Amino acid sequence: VSPYPPSKDLFLYPRSVVFVGLPRNNGPGFLNPIDNLIRWGFRGTVHLVHPHAREIAGFPTIEGLSMLEGPADLAVVSAPRETVPEIIGQCAQKGIRAIVVTNQGFADADSRGRELQRLVVEEARRSGVRILGPNTLGIVNAFHRFTTSFMPLERQELAIGAVCQSGVFVVDAKRLTGGMGIGVDIANGCDVGLADALEWLGSEAAIRVIALHAEGIPEGGRFLTVARRISGTKPIVALKTGRSWRGARAAVSHTGSLCGEDQVADVALRMAGVLRVDETQDMADLVRGLLVLPPMRGPRVAVVTFTGGGGIILLDFMERWGLEPTELATSTLDVLQEVYPPWLPPGNPMDIWPAIMKHGMERVYGLTLKAALMDPSVDGVLCVALGLPPEHRARLDSIEVIQGLSGEFDKPIVVWPYGEEAEEAHARLTERGRAFAVPTLERGVRLLGHMSRYERWKRLSGGSFEMAGS
Amino acid sequence: VSPYPPSKDLFLYPRSVVFVGLPRNNGPGFLNPIDNLIRWGFRGTVHLVHPHAREIAGFPTIEGLSMLEGPADLAVVSAPRETVPEIIGQCAQKGIRAIVVTNQGFADADSRGRELQRLVVEEARRSGVRILGPNTLGIVNAFHRFTTSFMPLERQELAIGAVCQSGVFVVDAKRLTGGMGIGVDIANGCDVGLADALEWLGSEAAIRVIALHAEGIPEGGRFLTVARRISGTKPIVALKTGRSWRGARAAVSHTGSLCGEDQVADVALRMAGVLRVDETQDMADLVRGLLVLPPMRGPRVAVVTFTGGGGIILLDFMERWGLEPTELATSTLDVLQEVYPPWLPPGNPMDIWPAIMKHGMERVYGLTLKAALMDPSVDGVLCVALGLPPEHRARLDSIEVIQGLSGEFDKPIVVWPYGEEAEEAHARLTERGRAFAVPTLERGVRLLGHMSRYERWKRLSGGSFEMAGS
Repeated sequence: VSPYPPSKDLFLYPRSVVFVGLPRNNGPGFLNPIDNLIRWGFRGTVHLVHPHAREIAGFPTIEGLSMLEGPADLAVVSAPRETVPEIIGQCAQKGIRAIVVTNQGFADADSRGRELQRLVVEEARRSGVRILGPNTLGIVNAFHRFTTSFMPLERQELAIGAVCQSGVFVVDAKRLTGGMGIGVDIANGCDVGLADALEWLGSEAAIRVIALHAEGIPEGGRFLTVARRISGTKPIVALKTGRSWRGARAAVSHTGSLCGEDQVADVALRMAGVLRVDETQDMADLVRGLLVLPPMRGPRVAVVTFTGGGGIILLDFMERWGLEPTELATSTLDVLQEVYPPWLPPGNPMDIWPAIMKHGMERVYGLTLKAALMDPSVDGVLCVALGLPPEHRARLDSIEVIQGLSGEFDKPIVVWPYGEEAEEAHARLTERGRAFAVPTLERGVRLLGHMSRYERWKRLSGGSFEMAGS
Repeated sequence: VSPYPPSKDLFLYPRSVVFVGLPRNNGPGFLNPIDNLIRWGFRGTVHLVHPHAREIAGFPTIEGLSMLEGPADLAVVSAPRETVPEIIGQCAQKGIRAIVVTNQGFADADSRGRELQRLVVEEARRSGVRILGPNTLGIVNAFHRFTTSFMPLERQELAIGAVCQSGVFVVDAKRLTGGMGIGVDIANGCDVGLADALEWLGSEAAIRVIALHAEGIPEGGRFLTVARRISGTKPIVALKTGRSWRGARAAVSHTGSLCGEDQVADVALRMAGVLRVDETQDMADLVRGLLVLPPMRGPRVAVVTFTGGGGIILLDFMERWGLEPTELATSTLDVLQEVYPPWLPPGNPMDIWPAIMKHGMERVYGLTLKAALMDPSVDGVLCVALGLPPEHRARLDSIEVIQGLSGEFDKPIVVWPYGEEAEEAHARLTERGRAFAVPTLERGVRLLGHMSRYERWKRLSGGSFEMAGS
């Protein structure tokens, strides 16, 4: 382990950056990292090292690192792999203390690659430099208008932090991590590791939820200590891959990761309060849900539904996720009784379709949802809503009712809009309000299940980790 | 069991329909079933029974069933529940042999409801009438421009048939069953049951894949015999709910279904060749995938990817779904060797990013995918593709390459497009070609896993069920 603590500020908030090796051309299709900085409006100083080009994207270049005048906070290296150890040394001589190595061909490749990665680390230790990568897109910091990614990225100042071991999570952050305000792709993780990156994000005030993708967890003990401390205030949602024998073997050749026993990882992550998800879509759902929704303080769910069949799907999944269809309070049942037809015994799920047919959508939905939210035996509400063509909305829309009530109560409301124009209803819910829309019933249950587990972990772990001062 | 076989033609292809009880108003928000028939251009005769309205939606009404002149193929009944048994009798007297009861309040409600449902069945048996429902949206037949649904529906002549026990699958067919050319909502299933409806769809030439939602499977033996026979030529994708204790109990009050032991259902469905899915989104993925893709003749998958991290996620899930990353043929490895940098050992997953950086997207993607498709050790291909903003597509698009090759080989290609404009790439793939786009890597694996299981079932079950003549 390096004796030099990796400086978060140099990596995440560099004021001056030198790119060593980058495409001569820029613009669409050339994947030149400078294009993102131009598009994002990076306000720091940029130096470009290129042996042949006089200028790139209008920026003057220098022929070699030796010609760099003044210091730089960060170097971004993309060069033939045999030259990388030497470049590390040259950077160090220029006083650069933080380096991102983006190119492939190290522990992700053949035996020579592994040897070269060892030399890179050796050189870094010798000269007091810290390395992120190799084989990485590096850093994303939308707040600082900075990224080292050569893949074109949209800048979004979201309260979502991400630590990953693969650029795919950076490139499609929208669907994989729910978005990314600040991100660190540790990739091969030869020096700066998961625990370092997690620590950085944990200390960022703008970040409220952290998404984590890991193939292996090499510094297990330190990682778990850091994760446990951060989980107390910011939820960490983790996708730990390399679970299967083949996946684990491939992880060795992807980033050189040793994956370990999956069940051990499972228990360890759970004890550290980390919310481990099974699939990429769950990571995005959970990260966004945690960002938007108030906490789910217990396992008791009220279901507001038009569809009995959908209600049963919810009950099946709730059982699997440790959630309970709550026993509604008498006062809530009384509200239902008032609008229900006499032949329908009120209960949970609240099947309100017959009542809607009689008294109208807006009145019945409003009454029911409000009663559920006020019910002390309810920790969260799962709502079914219709997404119909515009002409039907005047009489059959419930999205506005949900929006209105979602601001008034401190309980999570998860909504599954369905029907011909479900996407429109989904978008309307996502745009405003504190209710959260999901594309399937099952994903709604998983979200509330994870949220309930997280709060339970916080309760059970008490403040003990704070008392221990770790 | 009724001695009168339920006539498929009367239910699915009625030439004349009488509605007994329907809203006086029509148009947006009134949920009048007549609006769908107008919108869909139903070509048969329609009679409307209403005690007060002189006309509805421009159609003349009659005051009572007794005033109906001439016969009708089908009656659609929505009336106060106490009156329904009598209406059944009146229909029978008019020579009507098929009735859809749409309203709620029977076995889905209280004890009086269960009693009334019993009386409905008694009356039907006595008078030789068959009943679909109660508590149902009834019939969807886009090809016949006919539906009994009061919920607004889009008409789509898809080769997808659906049998369900809840209207939610009709209303949001797009996302739950992958669409619906012909659909039967058996709901409470007091008379016409799952096996009947399945048999109808099995005999429809226009239907190539069947989606099935069931809470319980009451006539288990007959259902499985029918399912097994149909599975031989048309895949059946099933979502069997009521798995949990609470879900099963709720199914009793939703449709009066007895759910049985879930593991027994699991084995029985598997033996009948039915593809049981775990979640609604898997049902839609699988139904549409089966419709678009050539068969997956074995478990051996080639992966074409830019992302090592994504490749590992695929490997994890492939192991879970009984799929194997194939050992590529030497000829395929030779093709890779030609474009790979010397430091990257070619293998499966085929990690082609470094090659693309050197030789360009179009050439490398085309070479690789074609080699995989030609490789005799490959049964299906999982592709990762980029979905980038338009300006990057000239150099970095692979969608066109995939489209081009997908028509040439008889192997399934499943594609996960990712990046800032993944949805655009997804839509382009869905619109044309025989490749199939998925929104997550994991869903792609599940799709191929189910498809491979289906072909194996077909091979193992041989033609035995045909020899048995069942």
